[in-house]
Amino acid sequence: MSDSAKTARADGRALDQLRPVTITRGWLDHAEGSCLIEFGRTRVLVAASVTEGVPRWRKDSGLGWVTSEYEMLPRATNTRSDRESRRGRIGGRTHEISRLIGRSLRGIIDYRALGENTIVIDCDVLQADGGTRTASITGAYVALHDAVEWLRARGALAGEPLTGSVSAISVGVVGGVPMSDLAYAEDSRADVDMNIVCTGSGDFVEVQGTGEGAAFGRDVLGRLLDLGQAGCAQLADLQARALADPEGRASL
Amino acid sequence: MSDSAKTARADGRALDQLRPVTITRGWLDHAEGSCLIEFGRTRVLVAASVTEGVPRWRKDSGLGWVTSEYEMLPRATNTRSDRESRRGRIGGRTHEISRLIGRSLRGIIDYRALGENTIVIDCDVLQADGGTRTASITGAYVALHDAVEWLRARGALAGEPLTGSVSAISVGVVGGVPMSDLAYAEDSRADVDMNIVCTGSGDFVEVQGTGEGAAFGRDVLGRLLDLGQAGCAQLADLQARALADPEGRASL
Amino acid sequence: MSDSAKTARADGRALDQLRPVTITRGWLDHAEGSCLIEFGRTRVLVAASVTEGVPRWRKDSGLGWVTSEYEMLPRATNTRSDRESRRGRIGGRTHEISRLIGRSLRGIIDYRALGENTIVIDCDVLQADGGTRTASITGAYVALHDAVEWLRARGALAGEPLTGSVSAISVGVVGGVPMSDLAYAEDSRADVDMNIVCTGSGDFVEVQGTGEGAAFGRDVLGRLLDLGQAGCAQLADLQARALADPEGRASL
Amino acid sequence: MSDSAKTARADGRALDQLRPVTITRGWLDHAEGSCLIEFGRTRVLVAASVTEGVPRWRKDSGLGWVTSEYEMLPRATNTRSDRESRRGRIGGRTHEISRLIGRSLRGIIDYRALGENTIVIDCDVLQADGGTRTASITGAYVALHDAVEWLRARGALAGEPLTGSVSAISVGVVGGVPMSDLAYAEDSRADVDMNIVCTGSGDFVEVQGTGEGAAFGRDVLGRLLDLGQAGCAQLADLQARALADPEGRASL
Amino acid sequence: MSDSAKTARADGRALDQLRPVTITRGWLDHAEGSCLIEFGRTRVLVAASVTEGVPRWRKDSGLGWVTSEYEMLPRATNTRSDRESRRGRIGGRTHEISRLIGRSLRGIIDYRALGENTIVIDCDVLQADGGTRTASITGAYVALHDAVEWLRARGALAGEPLTGSVSAISVGVVGGVPMSDLAYAEDSRADVDMNIVCTGSGDFVEVQGTGEGAAFGRDVLGRLLDLGQAGCAQLADLQARALADPEGRASL
Amino acid sequence: MSDSAKTARADGRALDQLRPVTITRGWLDHAEGSCLIEFGRTRVLVAASVTEGVPRWRKDSGLGWVTSEYEMLPRATNTRSDRESRRGRIGGRTHEISRLIGRSLRGIIDYRALGENTIVIDCDVLQADGGTRTASITGAYVALHDAVEWLRARGALAGEPLTGSVSAISVGVVGGVPMSDLAYAEDSRADVDMNIVCTGSGDFVEVQGTGEGAAFGRDVLGRLLDLGQAGCAQLADLQARALADPEGRASL
Repeated sequence: MSDSAKTARADGRALDQLRPVTITRGWLDHAEGSCLIEFGRTRVLVAASVTEGVPRWRKDSGLGWVTSEYEMLPRATNTRSDRESRRGRIGGRTHEISRLIGRSLRGIIDYRALGENTIVIDCDVLQADGGTRTASITGAYVALHDAVEWLRARGALAGEPLTGSVSAISVGVVGGVPMSDLAYAEDSRADVDMNIVCTGSGDFVEVQGTGEGAAFGRDVLGRLLDLGQAGCAQLADLQARALADPEGRASL
Repeated sequence: MSDSAKTARADGRALDQLRPVTITRGWLDHAEGSCLIEFGRTRVLVAASVTEGVPRWRKDSGLGWVTSEYEMLPRATNTRSDRESRRGRIGGRTHEISRLIGRSLRGIIDYRALGENTIVIDCDVLQADGGTRTASITGAYVALHDAVEWLRARGALAGEPLTGSVSAISVGVVGGVPMSDLAYAEDSRADVDMNIVCTGSGDFVEVQGTGEGAAFGRDVLGRLLDLGQAGCAQLADLQARALADPEGRASL
Repeated sequence: MSDSAKTARADGRALDQLRPVTITRGWLDHAEGSCLIEFGRTRVLVAASVTEGVPRWRKDSGLGWVTSEYEMLPRATNTRSDRESRRGRIGGRTHEISRLIGRSLRGIIDYRALGENTIVIDCDVLQADGGTRTASITGAYVALHDAVEWLRARGALAGEPLTGSVSAISVGVVGGVPMSDLAYAEDSRADVDMNIVCTGSGDFVEVQGTGEGAAFGRDVLGRLLDLGQAGCAQLADLQARALADPEGRASL
Repeated sequence: MSDSAKTARADGRALDQLRPVTITRGWLDHAEGSCLIEFGRTRVLVAASVTEGVPRWRKDSGLGWVTSEYEMLPRATNTRSDRESRRGRIGGRTHEISRLIGRSLRGIIDYRALGENTIVIDCDVLQADGGTRTASITGAYVALHDAVEWLRARGALAGEPLTGSVSAISVGVVGGVPMSDLAYAEDSRADVDMNIVCTGSGDFVEVQGTGEGAAFGRDVLGRLLDLGQAGCAQLADLQARALADPEGRASL
Repeated sequence: MSDSAKTARADGRALDQLRPVTITRGWLDHAEGSCLIEFGRTRVLVAASVTEGVPRWRKDSGLGWVTSEYEMLPRATNTRSDRESRRGRIGGRTHEISRLIGRSLRGIIDYRALGENTIVIDCDVLQADGGTRTASITGAYVALHDAVEWLRARGALAGEPLTGSVSAISVGVVGGVPMSDLAYAEDSRADVDMNIVCTGSGDFVEVQGTGEGAAFGRDVLGRLLDLGQAGCAQLADLQARALADPEGRASL
Repeated sequence: MSDSAKTARADGRALDQLRPVTITRGWLDHAEGSCLIEFGRTRVLVAASVTEGVPRWRKDSGLGWVTSEYEMLPRATNTRSDRESRRGRIGGRTHEISRLIGRSLRGIIDYRALGENTIVIDCDVLQADGGTRTASITGAYVALHDAVEWLRARGALAGEPLTGSVSAISVGVVGGVPMSDLAYAEDSRADVDMNIVCTGSGDFVEVQGTGEGAAFGRDVLGRLLDLGQAGCAQLADLQARALADPEGRASL
C-alpha cells in the first residue's frame, strides 16, 4: 500500500482500497446469465438475455449483437426519483450510462464467433451509493460470460466470442487527494471524477474523466490511471473467482 | 385440509396450500419502509418513500396521500420484455396493477390521521412466477407500516393512519379444480383467475375474478372466495410475525 | 320487487331498478356494427370494425382476434378533462376499462370459428353519468354481434364465433344499502363499487368489486351478486330485443 | 340558380346546393354550450366548456381566451384509424384543423368583453363524409354563443364578446366544375379544394384553397369565392334560426 | 409601381417591394440538392435528400414520393423556444407549415415520371424575421430541382418529374394598407395575413389568408392576390437565374 | 512537427495537424452570443441565449446556470436521419453530447459571478464530417463569452463569470497511428477514439477515450493526450484571435 493510501476516508478505507465487493451469480432463475453485484451499499442486479437472431439491420451478416440497458429503481437513491417510464422519456444520464456499458462490453467481444445471436444486458440498480456504472460493467461481464456458456452448451457459437474479460472502477480526487471506488458521499464532493474500464490484461477499454468545477493536470491524471488499473485488476481477479466458484459467489 | 385439497399440483402442493412465502423487512437502506417479498420464485422488492406535503390538488385539506407504482424488470419473466421507459409509454397491465395496489392500500388508511404526508409505494418485480400483484399488495402493507412508524417516530402523525392490515392472494380454477396461489404454469392455463384482497379481519377490500374463455357460476365463485379468505388470513398472520420479528423476517 | 328495493333513491328508482336503457343499432353508416347505448344520461357510442387478417403475432394460427378501446370525450363529464391524445399518454383508468371490455367479450368468443379476422370495438363515451364501462360492455356485444353477421353474410366465418351473449351492470352499496345501476351522484359516494359481467345464461365472466374506504363481508357481496345477475338478465333480454327489432332499437 | 348549378352530382344536388344541414343545440347535459351539427352524413358533436380564469401567460391582462380542439373518432371514417392517444402524438391534420377552428372563432371575439374567462371548444367528429372542418366551425359558433349566454346569465361578462357570427363551407372544383359542400366522394377527386370562413356580414375570416395536383387561375378562384360566400350566408341564417328556436333545432 | 406602393414602411420599401432575396445553391456537401435562401434577415437552409424506393404503402405503384419537414432552430427567433425534440412532440404550427410545403411541391410534380424514388425536403429555419414558410417553399423548389437533376444524371427517372416551378410570398394588410413580403415587425401587427403559392406560369397552387381579428372583403382579397402573383413572378425569375448561374447564386 | 506526423493522411495533413478551422462570430442577429464554427466540412452553428433568472430548483441561490443542447440537422450527415422531434424522443448520442458540452463549459464558469442569469448554449450541426462535439465545445466557448459580455454591458454580472477559456479536439488511433482532428472517414475506422477538452492554461476539463474493438495501453494514451493538449492550445489561440478580431472572424 502506498503512503498516500493511508489518508483517512469516512469509512476508514485506504485510498486505493475498494469497498467490500460481492458477486452472486445465478441470482435469477429465468435469465441465461445473471448476477447481483454489490460494492458496499451499491447493489446492481444484472441479467443477460439471449435471443436467437440479430436486429434487422444486422441480418445475414454472420455477426452477433450485444447491447445494454441501465436503469435505477425509483428508490435506489436517497430521495425517490420519478420513473422514466412514467415521464415517458429516458433521461440523459440513463442514456449515457447504457451506452458506456455497451461500449465496454463490445471491447471484448468477437461478433463473428458469437454468431447471429443477440445478448441484451440489463443492469438495474436496486440501491445506489456511488459507482453504479462501474459496478454494472463489472457485473455485466459475469452475466455475459454465463450467457455465452449457455450458448456454448447448446452448440450455438461459431467460436470463442469473448476475447478477454472487462471490469471497471470509479476513481477521483476528493479534497485534493486521488482515491479509488468513491462512495456517494465522496463522489458528490469530488473535484475530479473518473471511470476506468480495463480488460483483464490491464489495457484500457474506456477512460472517462471530468473535472467538476476544476481542471486537472497530467500528474493527477496519471495517479488516477494507476488507481484505476489497480482496481480493475482486483476486480478481474474477483470475476475469475466468481466464475470458478461452484456456488457462483465471490467476495473482495 | 379438505378432500379436494389433495388433488395433485405440479409442485405437490395441496389445493389450498400457499407456496413458501418469505418477507424480509428493511431490504433497502434509504427507503423509510421496504421489504423483499417472495412467493416461491416470485420476488418483489417493495419500497415506501415518505415525503412531507401532498400533491397540489390536495393541499390544505389536512389529508395525506398514498399512491403506488408497479413495474417489472425486463427479465423478470421467462422471455425478456421491452422496458416501458424505452417504449415511452406505460402498458395497460402495469397501469391496471398499479391502480389495484393503490386501491387496496387506501382501503385501510385514515388520511386524516396520516396528516399532510405522502407515501409512495414502489413495487418492482425482480422475478415473476405468478401472483406478482398479490405479492405486491401483501409486501406493500409491510413497507407502508414501517413508513408509518418512521413518521410516528418523528411525531409527524395526527393519529393512527392504519385502520387495519391488508393482504392479497391469487386463486383460480385450473383443470376444473379451484386452488390457491397459482404459479405461472398454473395461471397460464387457468379457466378462472381471481385476486382476493382482504383486511386482517377477513373482510374484502377488492375482489376481482375473470373467466378466461369460460364463465363461472355462484358455486365456483363461493369456493374461490373461501380459498381467498383462508389464504389472506395466513398472510395476515405472516405479516404480523414479520413486523414483530427483531430481524424483520418471517416465512410461511 | 323485494322490500329493500322500496328504499328511496334520488330519481325515485327501486334499489334493483335500472335507469331507462336504450339501444339504437346502426347509429353509424361506415362501421360493420355499431350502436348508441344510453343508461339514463350516460351515452356511449360503440363501433365494431372488421378487418381481414390478424395481428402479426397471431398469423397463420387459424384464430381470429377481438380487441377493444374505451375513451371519453373531453366534455363527457361535468368538468372538462384534457384529451389523452394531447397529453401524449393514455391514463390508467382508460387502460383499465379498455382491458375489462376486451376480457368481457373474449369470454363469449370462439376464435377458431371467427377465422383469421380482427374485430376492434371502439367505445366512446359521449356523455358520462356513471356506469360507462358496463354500458360499454353491454353495447359492445350488440355491435360485435352485427359485425359477426356482416362477416357471415360474406361467407367469411368458419363457424359460429359467438358462444353466447354478454352484458354488464354496475352495482354498489350507497349509504349502507346495496343497489343496482349507480348514477354518478350515487357512485361518487358509494362504499362498495362493483361491476358484474354475465353471460346470457347467467354465469359470470367478470366480477370486480372494491371497498371504497370500507371493506365488505360475504353477505354484502352476496346481495351485490344477486343484484348484478338480475340486472344482467334484464340487459340480456334487452339486447335480444334490439337484435330482433326491425328498426334495431329497444328500450328498458 | 345559375346554369352551371344544374350539372349532375351523385346525390342530385345543384352545384351551389348544400346537403341537408341540421343543428341540434343542447345535445349534451353538462357542457355550457353544445350542439350536434350534421351535413348529410357528416356528424360533429361540439361542446363549449367555460372555465373561470385564463392560461398563466394571459393572467391579469383583462382579456379572455378561446381555443379549440378537433378530433375524429377512430371509426368516423370508412376504414378505422388508430387513435392519436394510442399513438402518443397528434397528427398534422388534427393540429392544422384545430388551429383553423380557433382562428375562425377568434375572428369574431372581443376578448376584453369576454373578461378573464376561458372557453374551450371541442369538435369531435362522430361520422365523417367530407366537410368536417367547416361543419365544426359552423357548429362551434353556435356552442360558443350558448356558452357566452351562460356567462351572461351569471353576470360574468364585461360587455358583448361576440362581434358577429361565423360560419364555414367547403367548396371545390370536381371534374372541372366548381361546386359547393363537397361530400367525401367528391372531395377525394377534387382538383381544387377550398375552405371559406365568413362572418355573418359576408366578409372573409379565412380563405384556404389548394390545387390538388393542378394549379388554378383567378377566374376559378372567383367562382369558388362566390359559392363560398353564398353557402356561408345560408349557414349564417340557419345558425340564427337554431339560436332562436325554442327547441334549439333548425334544418336546411 | 402603383401609387399605394409609395406608402412608407419601416425599412423604406415600396408596398409591392420584396426584401433583398438571395439563393445560394449547393450550400451542403452531402445533400443531393440544397440551398440557403435569405429574405432579408430570414434565413432558411433547405436540403433535398433522395432515397431509392418509396414508403411501404406506395410500393409497386410505379409512383414516386415527395415530402417535407419544416423546423426552426431554437434561437432562430427573438427569444429562444424549446426544442420540439425535447418536448417530445411537434407543435401545431410546425405540422401546419410542413404540410403546406409538401402540398405546394406536390402541385408541380409528376409522380410517375419521378419513378419509385423518394425525395425528402428539409427546411430548417436558421434565423426568422417573417415569411419563413414562403421562403421555405421558394427554396424547396430549387433544392428539389437539383435533386431531380441528380436523379436524371443517374438515369433514374422515368420522364420529367417537374411540371413547372413553384414559389411563394407572404402578403398582408398592415395599418389598413396591403403590402408584400412582411417582415416580422409588420407581420405581428397585420390585420390580414396571407400566403400565396404560385406556379411559374402564375396560377395558384395554394391561397391561404386569415383575418387576424378583423374580417376582409373581396376588394382587399383582390389586391392581396395581385401583390402575391407579382411577388411570386419575381421569385420565379430569381429561381431560374439561380438555377442557371454557374456559381449557383442569384440575388434580388 | 514530429517524425510520426509525416505519415500520410487522405487529405495530406500531418498527424498533429488540424483541418482548416474558422470561427465567425455574430452569425445570428437575435442571439446574445453566436458563432459559426467550421472544422473542414464540419459546420456547427452555436447560439448563446441569455435569460434573466434561473430554473426553479436554483432560485434564490445567488448562482447562475449554464446548460447546453446539441442536435444535428437531419441531412447534416451522408444519409438523412430522422428528426428526433418526429420520433418523439431524443437519442442516446444526442443526450450524451449535450451533457458533455454542458460539463465542459461548467468547468470554466463561476456561477456566483454570473449572478442569477441563465445561459443556454445551442449547438446545431448544419453539416457533419467528424469532430462535431469538439467543434461544438470550441464554438460554445466563443458564444458564451459574447453572451457574458452582453450581460456585462448591461451591468448584470456580479463579477467575472469566466475563470478561463475552454476548447476541445478529437484525437484517435487510425491504422495503428495516433493522429489529431479525425475527419469522418478516419473516425469511422479508428481503433481508439478520444475527445480531449482543455482549459486555455492546458489542464484537462474532460478526457474521454474509447477503444473501438481494441483496448489500448498507457503509452498510446500518453501520445493521444499529447496530441489533444497541442490541438487544444492551437484552438485556444484561435478563439482569442476571433474574440479580438474587429470583424469577429479568425481562421487556422
